[in-house]
Amino acid sequence: MISRIEINDIRYPLPGNAGSDAIHRDPVYSYAVTRLFDDKGFIGTGFAFTLGEGNDLVCKAAKYYADKLVGKDIEETMATFGSLFFELSNDQQFRWLGPHKGVVHLALASVTNACYDLWAKKRGVPLWKLLIDLSPEEIINTLDLSYLEDELTREQALQILRVQQSTIKNREKIMETGYPGYDTSIGWFNYSDEKVRENCYKAIAEGFTAMKLKVGSADPDRDIRRAGIVREVAGAQVKVMLDANQQWNLPQAMAICQRLKDIHPYWIEEPTHPDDILGHKKLADSIAPLKLAIGEHVPNKVVFKNYLQAQAASFIQVDAVRVGGVSEFITISLLCKKYGVPVVPHVGDMGQLHQHLVLFNHIKMGHEVIFLEHIPHLKNRFIHPAQIINGTYKTPQEAGSSCDLVELAK
Amino acid sequence: MISRIEINDIRYPLPGNAGSDAIHRDPVYSYAVTRLFDDKGFIGTGFAFTLGEGNDLVCKAAKYYADKLVGKDIEETMATFGSLFFELSNDQQFRWLGPHKGVVHLALASVTNACYDLWAKKRGVPLWKLLIDLSPEEIINTLDLSYLEDELTREQALQILRVQQSTIKNREKIMETGYPGYDTSIGWFNYSDEKVRENCYKAIAEGFTAMKLKVGSADPDRDIRRAGIVREVAGAQVKVMLDANQQWNLPQAMAICQRLKDIHPYWIEEPTHPDDILGHKKLADSIAPLKLAIGEHVPNKVVFKNYLQAQAASFIQVDAVRVGGVSEFITISLLCKKYGVPVVPHVGDMGQLHQHLVLFNHIKMGHEVIFLEHIPHLKNRFIHPAQIINGTYKTPQEAGSSCDLVELAK
Repeated sequence: MISRIEINDIRYPLPGNAGSDAIHRDPVYSYAVTRLFDDKGFIGTGFAFTLGEGNDLVCKAAKYYADKLVGKDIEETMATFGSLFFELSNDQQFRWLGPHKGVVHLALASVTNACYDLWAKKRGVPLWKLLIDLSPEEIINTLDLSYLEDELTREQALQILRVQQSTIKNREKIMETGYPGYDTSIGWFNYSDEKVRENCYKAIAEGFTAMKLKVGSADPDRDIRRAGIVREVAGAQVKVMLDANQQWNLPQAMAICQRLKDIHPYWIEEPTHPDDILGHKKLADSIAPLKLAIGEHVPNKVVFKNYLQAQAASFIQVDAVRVGGVSEFITISLLCKKYGVPVVPHVGDMGQLHQHLVLFNHIKMGHEVIFLEHIPHLKNRFIHPAQIINGTYKTPQEAGSSCDLVELAK
Repeated sequence: MISRIEINDIRYPLPGNAGSDAIHRDPVYSYAVTRLFDDKGFIGTGFAFTLGEGNDLVCKAAKYYADKLVGKDIEETMATFGSLFFELSNDQQFRWLGPHKGVVHLALASVTNACYDLWAKKRGVPLWKLLIDLSPEEIINTLDLSYLEDELTREQALQILRVQQSTIKNREKIMETGYPGYDTSIGWFNYSDEKVRENCYKAIAEGFTAMKLKVGSADPDRDIRRAGIVREVAGAQVKVMLDANQQWNLPQAMAICQRLKDIHPYWIEEPTHPDDILGHKKLADSIAPLKLAIGEHVPNKVVFKNYLQAQAASFIQVDAVRVGGVSEFITISLLCKKYGVPVVPHVGDMGQLHQHLVLFNHIKMGHEVIFLEHIPHLKNRFIHPAQIINGTYKTPQEAGSSCDLVELAK
């Protein structure tokens, strides 16, 4: 039984321009952390990610949701978590503040993730193993499929999982090899050209075969020049992604993406406003075969449904610490599977939680694994930091979702 | 000069099921109020609307924005308000909590509206008069047109206003006659059939020629029955609107809207999730000529742009206490004008602020006036309550935006 809850506002200033992008010049990586204390001594930890200011608002909203969990048994809760998610996310007064977006939905992510962490810890297994061992019915019972009835009924969702059941063994091999990470830290926005070049060499030496540069400068020539540096150092075989962090308007994006084609980027990420579904569609059509990646700021399953229906993005970067947690992440992954669009999470969690979810998506749902973003800046802040060796994410073995923070350890 | 700010969390429980709809069974109409104190003794009042829980979060976020206004002159601020709006709404850490949606954007509405109120009070005129007397350039300078470049450039926005300048005098006649209100209070969700019938008779006796019923019941027959009662009492000439408050999923909406056609509703409001642009489009196409109204929960100009581009709604119900305040309301009204779609605001402000904006939209921008929603429950809470006489909104004469609350008067 969950006997008490605790919410913590944890903020980590970053050194020397790390984390900077076209919009966020001075981010403070922050977590609104929910902890659920079980009367058997287990602690479920989950969080949402913010860039500093307002992390306290998310904490306050998380407390509102988490208070409702006191007295509940985690196994019983997770047996019908989809219903609880529906109930919490449609709380009749609180929902006005969204619905299903912004502060309240970030808060729900924090609480949801703490539930999944507690569930796995009580079973004594890593989250990926817990999820893979569930039956298709048990998984679907943790999901809220409301407002998706036109695209993904319960029966259709079950069917997606059922057809994959017989081939799970083949895909479990990935647990031995691990899967590629990509390096987001070669080219933060405020890094000098020299530092970008140096970081590219370093990333390649560390075994990375994919890396990402921040673009979206007021001066397009700066973007072109820096992208050229990365491609030059990386060579033709390495995947190079370019991330504009919404800094372009649509006409600007159409123009500069044409110029960036020569660099052969693997994708262009967040070219413009994350709510502009039809804008992304227009851009995607105009720059094909160059591909778009979107999701870091997309708040919920309904907006992702629209992106998929419009065929406006080629990679879905859903983040389980932005949407309503693991539950909604899985829901969105099912939608993506139906549409044949790969899921490549954005890692507000620094990959800690998502390393489990990528394994689940691949093994249980049959998603292709391309790679997972790697951001090293908070590595020492986690009790069980993700292990990236030779550019490869290794399979986590500790019980839970790898989200416990050093700061909160006794 | 703005010498200090004050934020107040004001909540009004409603008596006897008033305000209830298919989702909100027990709302507490609440305002997150920003007040800007000028060193000449003027007080600018603005607010955002919530349903109770979490109003404190909006207040806290509003304080973050409002603190940045201390020391500023209101005339100077409003001369380039579009830039300030861009700056605040893209605050590099805070924006992660949206962007441009949820708690932070509601908070921005509160602060923005206080600026407009102070501006009008210092000039000693009602807000509608202040806005109408501005030049097209002065108006556009109060707007942030970012992320609309593909649909509404600064020059195009100016042009919309310029072509209307020569016919303003013709449209000013509306200030003498007033314009129709519609009665939202005949059929709150939890009202009995008898009470709905009684309220219809009352509304007609009071001179209303349009009224709205809450639908979205788990039992479609209840919706059909109650809509039938309203149409029966109202007769064929009265406009009857039906509001589902997002309670249907798409297949449900498609089915029940076909049945509701017999009632001849003027519109169906919020049939399903407010983020589901393509769902609304599919529904609109399938039930034409029955029309959809949407906007109460649409957070910003970019999502409205998508609704307009998709031709997914026939009436835009933008609410200046949901989007980023008067400034973004005007921006969205310009987009609607370009598309020839009428603006019929949702009135989280109980019509206090919107009575000014409807006059402005009509007189200055050439928008058709259909009517404005009327909700009476907080009438006594305002120092200058909107005057609805014989079903008609009368032109407010007091300086400012009519948003001062009795509770906050000295």
